[in-house]
Amino acid sequence: MIAAIPILPPRIDRGWLGNLPPTLEWDGDETGFLRLLDQTVLPERVAFRDCRTAEDVWDAIKRLQVRGAPAIGVAAAYGLCLGTRAASAASNDALAAEIRRVAEYLCACRPTAVNLAWAVRRVAQAGTQKGRAAREAWLAMLRAAHALAAEDADVCRRIGEAGARLVPDGGGVLTHCNAGALATVAYGTALSVLYAAHAQGKRFRVFADETRPLLQGARLTAYELQAAGLDVTVLCDGAAASLLASGQVQMVIVGADRIAANGDTANKIGTYGLALAARAHEVPFYVAAPRSTFDLSIRSGAEIRIEERAASEVGVIGDREIVPKGVSCWNPAFDVTPSPLIAGFVTESGVLQPVPGHGFGEIFDPRGLK
Amino acid sequence: MIAAIPILPPRIDRGWLGNLPPTLEWDGDETGFLRLLDQTVLPERVAFRDCRTAEDVWDAIKRLQVRGAPAIGVAAAYGLCLGTRAASAASNDALAAEIRRVAEYLCACRPTAVNLAWAVRRVAQAGTQKGRAAREAWLAMLRAAHALAAEDADVCRRIGEAGARLVPDGGGVLTHCNAGALATVAYGTALSVLYAAHAQGKRFRVFADETRPLLQGARLTAYELQAAGLDVTVLCDGAAASLLASGQVQMVIVGADRIAANGDTANKIGTYGLALAARAHEVPFYVAAPRSTFDLSIRSGAEIRIEERAASEVGVIGDREIVPKGVSCWNPAFDVTPSPLIAGFVTESGVLQPVPGHGFGEIFDPRGLK
Repeated sequence: MIAAIPILPPRIDRGWLGNLPPTLEWDGDETGFLRLLDQTVLPERVAFRDCRTAEDVWDAIKRLQVRGAPAIGVAAAYGLCLGTRAASAASNDALAAEIRRVAEYLCACRPTAVNLAWAVRRVAQAGTQKGRAAREAWLAMLRAAHALAAEDADVCRRIGEAGARLVPDGGGVLTHCNAGALATVAYGTALSVLYAAHAQGKRFRVFADETRPLLQGARLTAYELQAAGLDVTVLCDGAAASLLASGQVQMVIVGADRIAANGDTANKIGTYGLALAARAHEVPFYVAAPRSTFDLSIRSGAEIRIEERAASEVGVIGDREIVPKGVSCWNPAFDVTPSPLIAGFVTESGVLQPVPGHGFGEIFDPRGLK
Repeated sequence: MIAAIPILPPRIDRGWLGNLPPTLEWDGDETGFLRLLDQTVLPERVAFRDCRTAEDVWDAIKRLQVRGAPAIGVAAAYGLCLGTRAASAASNDALAAEIRRVAEYLCACRPTAVNLAWAVRRVAQAGTQKGRAAREAWLAMLRAAHALAAEDADVCRRIGEAGARLVPDGGGVLTHCNAGALATVAYGTALSVLYAAHAQGKRFRVFADETRPLLQGARLTAYELQAAGLDVTVLCDGAAASLLASGQVQMVIVGADRIAANGDTANKIGTYGLALAARAHEVPFYVAAPRSTFDLSIRSGAEIRIEERAASEVGVIGDREIVPKGVSCWNPAFDVTPSPLIAGFVTESGVLQPVPGHGFGEIFDPRGLK
């Protein structure tokens, strides 16, 4: 059975983003595929990876060709659609079994990113409602994935609008890693705040930590801010404390991979040290994230499992071995910044702070499906 | 006129250092040359650069083929000898003029490193005493350079012996950049403390910040500790705060490029942020340095001029451009750690602290020639 009207992906307003290519896009109707901007070769090359199977998407997420909690979530949502499309031509039971298998497979790819599991669950739920033919159920999953993509862009835009007032006009802003358009469907989280402020006419200088080991700040944040016409300067992660001491920075803003109920925040390795340095110089340190990044099922950062990644990410750069053979490397992907170091959480619902003694539990339950 | 007895370089005991090649060595008698271990190609290759002119030495210092305040000082001392050898065959006036010219030239190469100017001045003074033939004066300069090399090794060994008691037995030690044998004639400063503790039978794990942009921690500290048989693990600079939070580190120890009279310490970029993180976790943070690194002519770190180096050091790694074209980089070589963050200064005269209100001025005047 063919749907009467082709199911097409959402149209996203990219006015804030200049010539920046889309992070990810479903190409075509329900027979289409997922096209990802390959972020591992930026800024040297602009190349795309077309994903036609769940395995393609899993591999792209694992290799960080697509990265950033919200973008991973949407990519995985499409991955679940791709991985179950064939089964939807068989039976309801075959589809249900395949949804379970592929969902579990995709969720295991990057365990720290809460959005991945959240997005996959949401699309899976759309495909497992009773009383529909398998094909209709699968089309509902694709619609759910498209809705997720549209919602991600909308949420990011609202994060930007909520945080724009915090940006100093004429000052400097420091950020870490890439919490930008390239980490989401569009706009980003931390960088959306900067795009919104820039669109309001504020002028400021952005400093981007290069963010070792994978250099997302140097490669991606610098690339997208430049494409969007913002003034950006890259520095080594170790230079951030010195930059803060110099008085050139009035605001630090970063993204998040998972936020505990008390506000403790897991984000790219290096965030915690930056937060300590910001506190030492009384520069406000903000976290920008959609409500889907808040995980109210965990009370504090102590419960966040930190992914450790391959030593080769530290020890090899391009074609150079920078660490002697036989020497081990410690390569945690994330660290946890304690809530008291965070001046505010910029969300699509405004700039929030956890309620002392109660955390975010009383403010919202972002994991509930509206 | 030929000296009756050939003037030969000092013999250095390298028992702590395993198979590590010498950082720098004068090869031969007074007709000899300076051989440097080329640190820009470590750990991939062990290669040497032979310097026969002051220009060779200047270039090697500028390219960081030889680096580390004490090693730069000794290399520059030999550079002054090489650059004035020809003039010593002419007249006293020619030698004196050439000493002035070459000394000024070498001192301008890296302005933050106080040892460079100190070492060059010391050798220059040996060559400008009145009442001697030019050739005798020049031989006195070479003897002074040899004495400086022997003294550097001796001072470093005493730094190690003075600090060994601070090293935890069975714990972890974190260091930044390379304040090791490769930064000095032998043993190093911060790492000499670890070599001495290891020689005493203490067992501990060393964590080395990779130290962007030039990766001296990953490339050099890991290389020399491994060569000497110590247990070393490399981490990205941004992971240090997280490592400190994990409780695996009981001591942080770093070197210094210049220490003001009040104890404010200029060292490799990233040191200050590390000191802030150590303080946040109540892990003692030590600076190890010879007395020649103390510059009592400046009261505080505010007076230390910070060298800014080329943007390409940040933006290009090996053959990869990691920062988009047209994006600027901020690349200060050093930062300043305020004295109150430093638990103690490990010197050849013991573990010292500045006298409140008076600094180090009352303790010693290390720039006076004994």
